[in-house]
Amino acid sequence: MSTPHDPHPPEGAVRRAVAAALEEDLGGLGDLSAALVPASANASLSIVARAAGVLAGERCARATFALVDPSLEVRWHLGDGSPVAPGQVVAEVSGALRSVLTAERTALNFLGRLSGVASLTRRYVEAVEAANPSTRVLDTRKTTPGLRALEKAAVRAGGGHNHRFGLSDGILVKDNHLAGLGIADAVGTARRMWPGRSVEIECDRIGQVEEACRAGASAVLLDNMTPSEVAACVELVGGLRPDGSMLVEVSGGVTLESAPRYAAAGADLISVGALTHSASVLDLGLDLGRPGAVAP
Amino acid sequence: MSTPHDPHPPEGAVRRAVAAALEEDLGGLGDLSAALVPASANASLSIVARAAGVLAGERCARATFALVDPSLEVRWHLGDGSPVAPGQVVAEVSGALRSVLTAERTALNFLGRLSGVASLTRRYVEAVEAANPSTRVLDTRKTTPGLRALEKAAVRAGGGHNHRFGLSDGILVKDNHLAGLGIADAVGTARRMWPGRSVEIECDRIGQVEEACRAGASAVLLDNMTPSEVAACVELVGGLRPDGSMLVEVSGGVTLESAPRYAAAGADLISVGALTHSASVLDLGLDLGRPGAVAP
Amino acid sequence: MSTPHDPHPPEGAVRRAVAAALEEDLGGLGDLSAALVPASANASLSIVARAAGVLAGERCARATFALVDPSLEVRWHLGDGSPVAPGQVVAEVSGALRSVLTAERTALNFLGRLSGVASLTRRYVEAVEAANPSTRVLDTRKTTPGLRALEKAAVRAGGGHNHRFGLSDGILVKDNHLAGLGIADAVGTARRMWPGRSVEIECDRIGQVEEACRAGASAVLLDNMTPSEVAACVELVGGLRPDGSMLVEVSGGVTLESAPRYAAAGADLISVGALTHSASVLDLGLDLGRPGAVAP
Amino acid sequence: MSTPHDPHPPEGAVRRAVAAALEEDLGGLGDLSAALVPASANASLSIVARAAGVLAGERCARATFALVDPSLEVRWHLGDGSPVAPGQVVAEVSGALRSVLTAERTALNFLGRLSGVASLTRRYVEAVEAANPSTRVLDTRKTTPGLRALEKAAVRAGGGHNHRFGLSDGILVKDNHLAGLGIADAVGTARRMWPGRSVEIECDRIGQVEEACRAGASAVLLDNMTPSEVAACVELVGGLRPDGSMLVEVSGGVTLESAPRYAAAGADLISVGALTHSASVLDLGLDLGRPGAVAP
Amino acid sequence: MSTPHDPHPPEGAVRRAVAAALEEDLGGLGDLSAALVPASANASLSIVARAAGVLAGERCARATFALVDPSLEVRWHLGDGSPVAPGQVVAEVSGALRSVLTAERTALNFLGRLSGVASLTRRYVEAVEAANPSTRVLDTRKTTPGLRALEKAAVRAGGGHNHRFGLSDGILVKDNHLAGLGIADAVGTARRMWPGRSVEIECDRIGQVEEACRAGASAVLLDNMTPSEVAACVELVGGLRPDGSMLVEVSGGVTLESAPRYAAAGADLISVGALTHSASVLDLGLDLGRPGAVAP
Amino acid sequence: MSTPHDPHPPEGAVRRAVAAALEEDLGGLGDLSAALVPASANASLSIVARAAGVLAGERCARATFALVDPSLEVRWHLGDGSPVAPGQVVAEVSGALRSVLTAERTALNFLGRLSGVASLTRRYVEAVEAANPSTRVLDTRKTTPGLRALEKAAVRAGGGHNHRFGLSDGILVKDNHLAGLGIADAVGTARRMWPGRSVEIECDRIGQVEEACRAGASAVLLDNMTPSEVAACVELVGGLRPDGSMLVEVSGGVTLESAPRYAAAGADLISVGALTHSASVLDLGLDLGRPGAVAP
Repeated sequence: MSTPHDPHPPEGAVRRAVAAALEEDLGGLGDLSAALVPASANASLSIVARAAGVLAGERCARATFALVDPSLEVRWHLGDGSPVAPGQVVAEVSGALRSVLTAERTALNFLGRLSGVASLTRRYVEAVEAANPSTRVLDTRKTTPGLRALEKAAVRAGGGHNHRFGLSDGILVKDNHLAGLGIADAVGTARRMWPGRSVEIECDRIGQVEEACRAGASAVLLDNMTPSEVAACVELVGGLRPDGSMLVEVSGGVTLESAPRYAAAGADLISVGALTHSASVLDLGLDLGRPGAVAP
Repeated sequence: MSTPHDPHPPEGAVRRAVAAALEEDLGGLGDLSAALVPASANASLSIVARAAGVLAGERCARATFALVDPSLEVRWHLGDGSPVAPGQVVAEVSGALRSVLTAERTALNFLGRLSGVASLTRRYVEAVEAANPSTRVLDTRKTTPGLRALEKAAVRAGGGHNHRFGLSDGILVKDNHLAGLGIADAVGTARRMWPGRSVEIECDRIGQVEEACRAGASAVLLDNMTPSEVAACVELVGGLRPDGSMLVEVSGGVTLESAPRYAAAGADLISVGALTHSASVLDLGLDLGRPGAVAP
Repeated sequence: MSTPHDPHPPEGAVRRAVAAALEEDLGGLGDLSAALVPASANASLSIVARAAGVLAGERCARATFALVDPSLEVRWHLGDGSPVAPGQVVAEVSGALRSVLTAERTALNFLGRLSGVASLTRRYVEAVEAANPSTRVLDTRKTTPGLRALEKAAVRAGGGHNHRFGLSDGILVKDNHLAGLGIADAVGTARRMWPGRSVEIECDRIGQVEEACRAGASAVLLDNMTPSEVAACVELVGGLRPDGSMLVEVSGGVTLESAPRYAAAGADLISVGALTHSASVLDLGLDLGRPGAVAP
Repeated sequence: MSTPHDPHPPEGAVRRAVAAALEEDLGGLGDLSAALVPASANASLSIVARAAGVLAGERCARATFALVDPSLEVRWHLGDGSPVAPGQVVAEVSGALRSVLTAERTALNFLGRLSGVASLTRRYVEAVEAANPSTRVLDTRKTTPGLRALEKAAVRAGGGHNHRFGLSDGILVKDNHLAGLGIADAVGTARRMWPGRSVEIECDRIGQVEEACRAGASAVLLDNMTPSEVAACVELVGGLRPDGSMLVEVSGGVTLESAPRYAAAGADLISVGALTHSASVLDLGLDLGRPGAVAP
Repeated sequence: MSTPHDPHPPEGAVRRAVAAALEEDLGGLGDLSAALVPASANASLSIVARAAGVLAGERCARATFALVDPSLEVRWHLGDGSPVAPGQVVAEVSGALRSVLTAERTALNFLGRLSGVASLTRRYVEAVEAANPSTRVLDTRKTTPGLRALEKAAVRAGGGHNHRFGLSDGILVKDNHLAGLGIADAVGTARRMWPGRSVEIECDRIGQVEEACRAGASAVLLDNMTPSEVAACVELVGGLRPDGSMLVEVSGGVTLESAPRYAAAGADLISVGALTHSASVLDLGLDLGRPGAVAP
Repeated sequence: MSTPHDPHPPEGAVRRAVAAALEEDLGGLGDLSAALVPASANASLSIVARAAGVLAGERCARATFALVDPSLEVRWHLGDGSPVAPGQVVAEVSGALRSVLTAERTALNFLGRLSGVASLTRRYVEAVEAANPSTRVLDTRKTTPGLRALEKAAVRAGGGHNHRFGLSDGILVKDNHLAGLGIADAVGTARRMWPGRSVEIECDRIGQVEEACRAGASAVLLDNMTPSEVAACVELVGGLRPDGSMLVEVSGGVTLESAPRYAAAGADLISVGALTHSASVLDLGLDLGRPGAVAP
């Protein structure tokens, strides 16, 4: 599996998220417990994976250490998108023990959560690619409020792809929209209002897919269909739009079990809310390298 | 189970999180797809649970609708801390269809994620209370960066209790601190530096517990011990500090299976990182109330 | 001409811009001059156009008055997208004279600048529509730093359409990109990396247009071509992609004189940087309604 | 012409404006198109003027490149206030092609807009100085919301001078104020309330000028008078306040044609809203230095 | 004594300061102690002065209660600038006891600190006016970082006047500036660079005062002179600038004892750093109105 | 006297406060007066104490100079917590004279105010320690809005200790709380709601102290008692809680005179609002090192 493009989030999103997380953790008095440790104690510690997965969040962890204490030295052995095995050292941090202790939890929270997203994405990508190498796994807008840019970058680190970022950069007409207007109308109005943009229509049944095809939509999102229903839609689309100008996306409660079946049915895209809304953290810890690693 | 105290996060945390989430989703052009719907179309929709759990995030959802369109009417049937059953209506929203569509995902992202935390908390609380009614379930600092205040409120909504909010409001001396100083030293220095505050010591073995007891710590955090090791520690603490002035907390990889065993072993507190770092969202949707619910 | 879709910017963009503008103008001491006027003086004033054009910025002006003094009454006679004639009253403001004086410049700065953008857009749209009713006028990213959302809304108010908002919501491969990769490669990589998104290629010569057509691009941007070169490209595209699946956009120094010629040459889209980077303000003033309009 | 004082805006204003502009442009996913270019491609590009004018905005452009990628090397050939000729190289940028492409538009938007303001200012200053070397050209508060500090610095770069920054740092009693109080009252109250500050009175007719003179105002702003009316006012002021303690400012629809006539009539100051509200951008581009400038 | 002009700070400054103060106090978990009080308990409390002074900060206190709980009812008996006597009721607050307790300290901190500034100002103003009714008391830039707008408003509430707000809105050439340039040069350059603005020169000895007079400065700031030295300077200025166009300001370690002596010596302005840098708080408390004021 | 722990505030609090203070002072045009000084003039100046006290605020002053001009060289002779004598040099600053002049007031405002807090704290600490070496001096929440983190750090620099930071990190049940619930109830509810946290009860009379003791409170705050009443309470607590598990704090109008008497009466903690609400600034100035220190 390749991660051919930049998995990193925009620098501004990193900076803001890290500053907010540190303010949250440091509060008004700073780290009461680290103040107990002698200021002169230095240490060398390692960020170690305690489970297998895919790394993400390096930029955030890097920014955390730098903000807490610019004199800390951090050597990264792995970067975003790298697979990690239990026990593997991700990075080494050395410098004032107080500073490392203060930064620890915030850095690990970013790495753990974002690597959790990347790791789950990788599992979906591997399952899907085995069934159909041309099917891609996408994220959704079911992200953690305020962390969307970081989580979508983690999906890229895991080998997945990004659906639209938000309401402002893609047209997706869902069932609740269709309560107020017809499919052909929706496509026509979208083409007129927002020229040059892709228009995707959510479909619950094959009749809507045909309507969307004929109206010239760019993609259909098949919601909660079975693999065989999807296969029928794929066939229909292939007949009506043989130039491949319409993509078929599957969505709605897709699991690691059902994803390969949808891929085998010929879906171009499978979008999975769970990538961001239900990934468990990847367990990582910060270990003192060896006895005597703390120098007074 | 009672949730005797205010489960809501501070209003400032709500406002900031909701504004950030809406900016993230609305981008620079606003909702391209909602613009396809006639401005005059009104609708009445329901937020409906699709799974069982405990509600949290009402304040965030409320603020989301208000910020998108103050003229939307939202009637809440349930509040934070309420159990919800699949199919149950949580709230009804009526007003301009465009506005409801624009607010939908952000409101549901807050409700889903925070109710997920509350729901998992409730399961731990019920399991623990059945084993030992005086044991309490606590959260940790393993929260989502930037959302700690909201997630800790969701833990309260689920019937759990809050450990320290961050590094600034509690002293917890962990193994990496003890690399640089002894337990008795740590307690003494903490009492001198931060008079009037509780001092908790992380212990990996019973010998440390005894040392912490004798040093006058306020609590011990037993890390990764077995239930029978915990029981031994509880007995030791009961002997050395018979006035109950030292609490015994268990932490480290606690699961729904092991939590009741720790409770039965006599732990006062069980802290569970998974409450916030690995809760799945509670599935909620926004449904058109009935055919004809959209009025042009 | 119709302005079929919502010309307003996202509410968050309005709020932030207005708050920043007021802080800029009010400084630390507030309005020194308004303090000279008796606090009890009330007045009724009118926002009056001093030139012909198209209105935009109503939401910003409305927010300005509300932030300065919520007790001011503002009645709007016209909304965004309305044509205005010299002397026409746009809105009436009544309440404390001090407050009106304090809000005046900020409100007029928003209205003047954004109406300037809308007015220039309308002139381009009318010129283009007369030549070819199916050609649309688009904005660019050559906007005022920090005001892009407001200026793009003003373009919509003027009857124009929005190109991509920024680098994150559209793929446009320009000459400087092509220094590093070929057209076919660019299209292929874009389709693989960002499935479901439109891909546009900037072309300086007809050979590149053919290459982009064959590579399956969604659109070509013809940079600095003459109308007859554009006509040749339109013909080529019509032959190679007869289903209309590729749009032809013209850009680069387009003027009110050349725009209709490009439209007549068959361009689908004409993007004009001047809409936002070189529009003059629409002249508007705040006039006391009549002698005696100030009541002590 | 000399620009004897620091033309640069306060650093905080630069930082905030650049961060906002980059967030606006980079959105949540960053630069989709730059991601198509190989990460290893390096390039050397030049910022080149395509028209004659005066440079401004260097600090903003510098901050833009630094924020996008601190490893970019930028060599500036010219600074704020320098005249530029078509084809002249303003700066050279070298480093990762991706980074240069990402920063390009934001950097050029700042340079173009602010140099546009400086260039128009310079034209007014030259026209006015030729007619009367002691007359100065001033800006107004008719600036772009949120960019006032940058635009006023650009006016300085163009050789103009700054009127008050906002409502908090200067007293200017305008016609709408005078609806509520008399001139002598206004001057007296201002002297009492805000001791030590200049007090300027807007006058529509010579009778008001006399009143302001006798009341001890620091300056009069002659609004929409003809050059000969201005000359009469200058003579009157010279008679009544022979020590030069009262300045005569001309304002209201001043053009490049009328400005020298007002200068010749003896105005001390001519303030021109168009400097900031209607300046066209200075056209600047980013060019690859030469064939082969991109190194893979 | 009259406070003829608006003593209130700009609304934006109030909003920002209050939001920051509440975040500081409420932290991440909100008010732990108020949560112990039954949610249903209502109360009626009074803000009561415990010492004599002058009120300031009403807008901040008002905003504090509104932000904590918009349903609280607050009736103000006194406003900014009003004298208060020990035991006098400033305002009455009624509503949820929890909310009142949560807002109490933040509201009192604003009222206490700002009323402290107003009260000390009033004492200086009264002392000075008794000695010389035409002498005014001014503040300085020695304010609390971040609170300058509020403290300068409190000075106005106390009957004092505002010196320049900051470095951007007034020219004051101090001894350290004069290390790099002469007085006549300074005045000339200032007149050229910043036309229309007052220019004040700090003088340590009478020779500098003469130089400033002849150079046409707008004011002199006499630093650390004795009253009789001040009298000599006043006489000199009266002779050289008989039209009163130059103000004489006294500054530097002025006390309540020395201020009237400087006033009697003829100073126009006396600026006192202590108004803001060394005012004690005015003691105010929040009292339960009467037994039984809390209703469950 | 030792200041055994880190007296510095969290870096984020420093950064935010300094940026806000500089924006406040620099406004939109920057430093008008410094622009009069030749850009090439360099100087070497010293920050000199003009009175005796204890230093605090070094981090803020350091950040101020760095933000104004990173090329300034600042050498610190003393750090937070150091005693200073009149005339003693605290730091030397050299570089562009303009930059030093611009940063001067903001840097001194931080140093003066925070050193004022540290100095007053030191006086209380010395008075108290002489009377009873085991009594500690604490701050309160009566801090300057927005500066609490900096002021609490200054208290630490002065040798004092920090009470709770805000409402979110400590339980203190005051008289107004007790209007709504009894002492035993309060302690019980607090233990149940917020396990592991200290619970302090404000007492006006000895009967309440006994109730709090028996209810298991962690501390009592004796409000406005006389030293002999305090002694009686200390004796009572010593009898009922002989293990020292309950701290006795004295508060309410404590002065430098009364503090040692409370200490002698056996109070563990004495909290003094005046430390932050009524400290005068420590007088510090910026002096040119010697004649000829300015080099053109």
